[in-house]
Amino acid sequence: MKLRTLSLATVATTIASGAMAQEAAVAVPTDSVFILNSLLFLIGGFLVFWMAAGFSMLEAGLVRSKNVTMQLTKNMGLFGFACIAYYLIGYNLMYPLGTWAVDGVLSGVWGVAVMEAVGVAAADADDYSYAATGSDFFFQLMFCAATASIVSGALAERIKLWPFLIFTIVLTGVIYPLQASWKWGGGFLDAMGFLDFAGSTVVHSVGGWAALAGALILGPRIGKYTKDGRTVPFMASNLPLATLGTFILWMGWFGFNGGSQLAMGSVGDVADISRIFANTNAAAAAGAIAALILTQVLYKKPDLTMILNGALAGLVAITAEPLTPTLGAATLIGAIGGVIVVFGVPFLDKLKIDDVVGAIPVHLMAGIWGTIAVVFTNGDASLGTQLYSILVVGVFTFVVSGALWFILKMTMGIRVSEEDEITGLDKSELGMPAYDIVN
Amino acid sequence: MKLRTLSLATVATTIASGAMAQEAAVAVPTDSVFILNSLLFLIGGFLVFWMAAGFSMLEAGLVRSKNVTMQLTKNMGLFGFACIAYYLIGYNLMYPLGTWAVDGVLSGVWGVAVMEAVGVAAADADDYSYAATGSDFFFQLMFCAATASIVSGALAERIKLWPFLIFTIVLTGVIYPLQASWKWGGGFLDAMGFLDFAGSTVVHSVGGWAALAGALILGPRIGKYTKDGRTVPFMASNLPLATLGTFILWMGWFGFNGGSQLAMGSVGDVADISRIFANTNAAAAAGAIAALILTQVLYKKPDLTMILNGALAGLVAITAEPLTPTLGAATLIGAIGGVIVVFGVPFLDKLKIDDVVGAIPVHLMAGIWGTIAVVFTNGDASLGTQLYSILVVGVFTFVVSGALWFILKMTMGIRVSEEDEITGLDKSELGMPAYDIVN
Amino acid sequence: MKLRTLSLATVATTIASGAMAQEAAVAVPTDSVFILNSLLFLIGGFLVFWMAAGFSMLEAGLVRSKNVTMQLTKNMGLFGFACIAYYLIGYNLMYPLGTWAVDGVLSGVWGVAVMEAVGVAAADADDYSYAATGSDFFFQLMFCAATASIVSGALAERIKLWPFLIFTIVLTGVIYPLQASWKWGGGFLDAMGFLDFAGSTVVHSVGGWAALAGALILGPRIGKYTKDGRTVPFMASNLPLATLGTFILWMGWFGFNGGSQLAMGSVGDVADISRIFANTNAAAAAGAIAALILTQVLYKKPDLTMILNGALAGLVAITAEPLTPTLGAATLIGAIGGVIVVFGVPFLDKLKIDDVVGAIPVHLMAGIWGTIAVVFTNGDASLGTQLYSILVVGVFTFVVSGALWFILKMTMGIRVSEEDEITGLDKSELGMPAYDIVN
Repeated sequence: MKLRTLSLATVATTIASGAMAQEAAVAVPTDSVFILNSLLFLIGGFLVFWMAAGFSMLEAGLVRSKNVTMQLTKNMGLFGFACIAYYLIGYNLMYPLGTWAVDGVLSGVWGVAVMEAVGVAAADADDYSYAATGSDFFFQLMFCAATASIVSGALAERIKLWPFLIFTIVLTGVIYPLQASWKWGGGFLDAMGFLDFAGSTVVHSVGGWAALAGALILGPRIGKYTKDGRTVPFMASNLPLATLGTFILWMGWFGFNGGSQLAMGSVGDVADISRIFANTNAAAAAGAIAALILTQVLYKKPDLTMILNGALAGLVAITAEPLTPTLGAATLIGAIGGVIVVFGVPFLDKLKIDDVVGAIPVHLMAGIWGTIAVVFTNGDASLGTQLYSILVVGVFTFVVSGALWFILKMTMGIRVSEEDEITGLDKSELGMPAYDIVN
Repeated sequence: MKLRTLSLATVATTIASGAMAQEAAVAVPTDSVFILNSLLFLIGGFLVFWMAAGFSMLEAGLVRSKNVTMQLTKNMGLFGFACIAYYLIGYNLMYPLGTWAVDGVLSGVWGVAVMEAVGVAAADADDYSYAATGSDFFFQLMFCAATASIVSGALAERIKLWPFLIFTIVLTGVIYPLQASWKWGGGFLDAMGFLDFAGSTVVHSVGGWAALAGALILGPRIGKYTKDGRTVPFMASNLPLATLGTFILWMGWFGFNGGSQLAMGSVGDVADISRIFANTNAAAAAGAIAALILTQVLYKKPDLTMILNGALAGLVAITAEPLTPTLGAATLIGAIGGVIVVFGVPFLDKLKIDDVVGAIPVHLMAGIWGTIAVVFTNGDASLGTQLYSILVVGVFTFVVSGALWFILKMTMGIRVSEEDEITGLDKSELGMPAYDIVN
Repeated sequence: MKLRTLSLATVATTIASGAMAQEAAVAVPTDSVFILNSLLFLIGGFLVFWMAAGFSMLEAGLVRSKNVTMQLTKNMGLFGFACIAYYLIGYNLMYPLGTWAVDGVLSGVWGVAVMEAVGVAAADADDYSYAATGSDFFFQLMFCAATASIVSGALAERIKLWPFLIFTIVLTGVIYPLQASWKWGGGFLDAMGFLDFAGSTVVHSVGGWAALAGALILGPRIGKYTKDGRTVPFMASNLPLATLGTFILWMGWFGFNGGSQLAMGSVGDVADISRIFANTNAAAAAGAIAALILTQVLYKKPDLTMILNGALAGLVAITAEPLTPTLGAATLIGAIGGVIVVFGVPFLDKLKIDDVVGAIPVHLMAGIWGTIAVVFTNGDASLGTQLYSILVVGVFTFVVSGALWFILKMTMGIRVSEEDEITGLDKSELGMPAYDIVN
């Protein structure tokens, strides 16, 4: 028995419980299954909510100090608008009534999320033997908001506030839910056998594609790339804050992946969630260590920002399949995520694609890797289907996002003036510095 | 079925669970109800504990850098003393043995909180079929401490440490528990039909009234209001910290409101908690967005500190009734909270009431709004009773707090010297700067 | 009934639940016990994970600003390596198959942690009627990582990165698990009746002994102690960050101590966990208040860093026995922890042992106190056995750690050059400052 030595009282309880395990008393009652499933969504949901704080702190820590207030404002704004857009449109679009279909989508577009009645009796629960509708909505909403958070980091320090927020509304109200319905709403990708447990593709690469489209249309920050082809390093303003953001995201990811088991009312389910927690942690740790070792070897100096992004890339990589890998396989999958980041960041710079916080290597590149890696540990996965799904979701998101960014650019403009960018958005756009610290 | 497509294993489990749902196995066993209720208090409790960190970071971020160490010291001190005072006096005062009555109060004053025996058997549990006494104490304590946290922000940057801490002891040992017993201890306001689910009035406006009394007696900070009637903006020292504090409070609020369902052992209860989580989040998001849009319209620049306080005001507003509103109603209630803050902050300044972090608009004004708003969604609420209760609690708290502040002012003094205030409390009172950052 | 007045719906539910409490329905089904126990490990585990962030923020806030990036890098690195070392070696070494024995250890050394199969049926669960193996691994891993975090703070600002990380690997892969097996793996200290509920000795003092050995061999920072015997105070770089770290640790400790009940499937267990939560909180609060009052009395100025460490010492002190004390006893035990810190920090300085963050007073001294204090509230404890166990664990950890530090010193060197130390490790070793804040 792999446990700490139990206190006497506990042992007595365990024995007593075991003794009463007659046939009749063994099963978990149906009401309890409903409660435990809902509880999983609630705990998972507040942990994924917490990731909104993680993204905010990570991004506020990595941008230059003249753009910190703006980055925080964007993060608060995007989360707020995501909540409203997903409630009014997205949730119903993602899970259209009945089966996924064009007419289902159309009917869904105009519906709003509706929760169970107050004090509902078991017999009247919308989905008795499963979980409370409100808990499912709460949980799913947080995934939608996370997708939007990914975008804000990549486009930091030069995008205007309102075009960014308008993009967020469309992303969270329409783009994310529509493609998510293809897999999680029981749509055609799901029918084909596409496997994406908690969203390496459905969440992370979608955020990454939207960010990539935006970064290409927006262009790099002034001074980031010199005419003779060098990349100028910009100093992060606050590394403890970025590290805190990473720890917050890591913590939230237990809810992200663990909650995606979607059920906790049986021995098998809770054992699966336990595997997922352990694997998620192993992948993150391995991603961090891989980046630590690799930057030591390549640059002779460990690079903390790479280590942080390495941990995040490990988390993204394990997200498509956190259940079937052994601890060893999870460690390897995460480590490769870390390696991808260390090479992905300079690769993007070589292409002069300016991604301020490394969101594209972390969420898009490691997301693709994680989606492919499913085939190594899950016998039900088909490499062809995984690649096809990555492609379909990618093309859809990149094209629609690109078109939207282009329309925003043509109509209201998406980039601040050169002067404002050099001054910094906090002073020029908001008139409020992030720090006023006198030592 | 509004769920992600389930993994095969999960589907099998769900079907199996459904299949075994014969009459006998459906009900949640009584022991399980006790466990689940207690678990709700424990999870809710650590989330509300976490709000103490949120208040600390919010306040430390919003005060000027010369007063940050003192603000942190006050927050650690108030939480510590609140724990001791509520244990020794408050808990028993709030829930006097038997029914609420004067003699009950008197007997309660001298009692201390007592928890269940170690390894208690079901038959001997203090409140079998309900929840563990220790879990209830833990949960209630955190609400009491939150009330004290509200006060510290409003009075920052000029109040002396020890008078503030003495006030805290009386507030958490006597003032808060006494008025809380009127509603939550089954007292006369409860008997009248006053509805305040998680404490828009009982917690938030009480903190706000105590802060208002203090702010009036303490007076504004030097230089805040000029002789010609202008308000001088003082710079917040650290906006990422204030934003982090807001996210922490938002997260903790899921425990604050969700835990106030007080039960998780039935399908109806967990469905209610799920509604509460979703509504709480919607109100916060709407408060933030309302403040974002309104400051954009009024000042042409979004104001991050207003957005943060807008989110908090949305949370306070939904706290009196987070269960009965639809998602749409919760969104509206929260949005109005955000509007209240945007107008409330300059309104207080016009009255030359110096509330450093905006605690009075957030907790008192939005608390009153939330308590009134109960009548729009809960058919059991009476506007007259709500207004009467707001008045009774307000008059009691304001008068007793004011008297206490006055006594403290007359005896030991509550305000630091002019010279110390200008120098900053960190150097003058503590000899320890908050930051020593060399770029 | 010590509860808030229940809503009508809740009352109805409670009554209904009560009414159905016939003999047959009372018991918690065995599957539910398994689920609830596993859930306790998962919640406890993510809370203890969160402590890694707490240690990082505490340490990053207390070191000088020129060494912050390095401190963050060490914390990310140590956590990552701890995860890998505990998975590959430690877990199996700590809980050798069957009983604890030399051959068990040897066989265990080369084993790796293995989790339950995916979608395991109840009948096939490794430890049916107890908990999922993965949840236990996840929970135990976080304790191991916490031990390593303790070391990093004490040795900050002058130790080289890689020797520190190598030490971490041995500590988490071998030293910690080996001694932990003596108590928690059912080894000889457990057989003797040694009581250490959640690890005042097994975790905290072990971290403290390893840190002490390192601090002695490493020597103090340049300029810390003058030739005429004075201790030069070095400024903490960021006190809000250190305070945040303390709150994070405090929050995580609910999982640390509460999860160590190891079971949540009965009325008695959840009532015990509730006691533990309340006691843990009381001890932390009392430790903070004791340090606040004592520094006020001794130095006429409250010292925030002492208050923070006082709270942590209160937490460490209650960890050996958080269950049996009354709230009053827990408050006293914690308060004495706070007193120990206030005297322990200058005592170490007098010995010219340079412990940057106060880890040795907090984790070692208060850990010894807490282990002894078990005898005051737990009738099963023997003072002799407690002292003997403290000694055995202490000698083992100190000698093995010391030898390892010495070998590392002789082979690769453990201390940065004098020039690099004066410059600061962020610039000299990593080339990356932690802050680039322009007001």
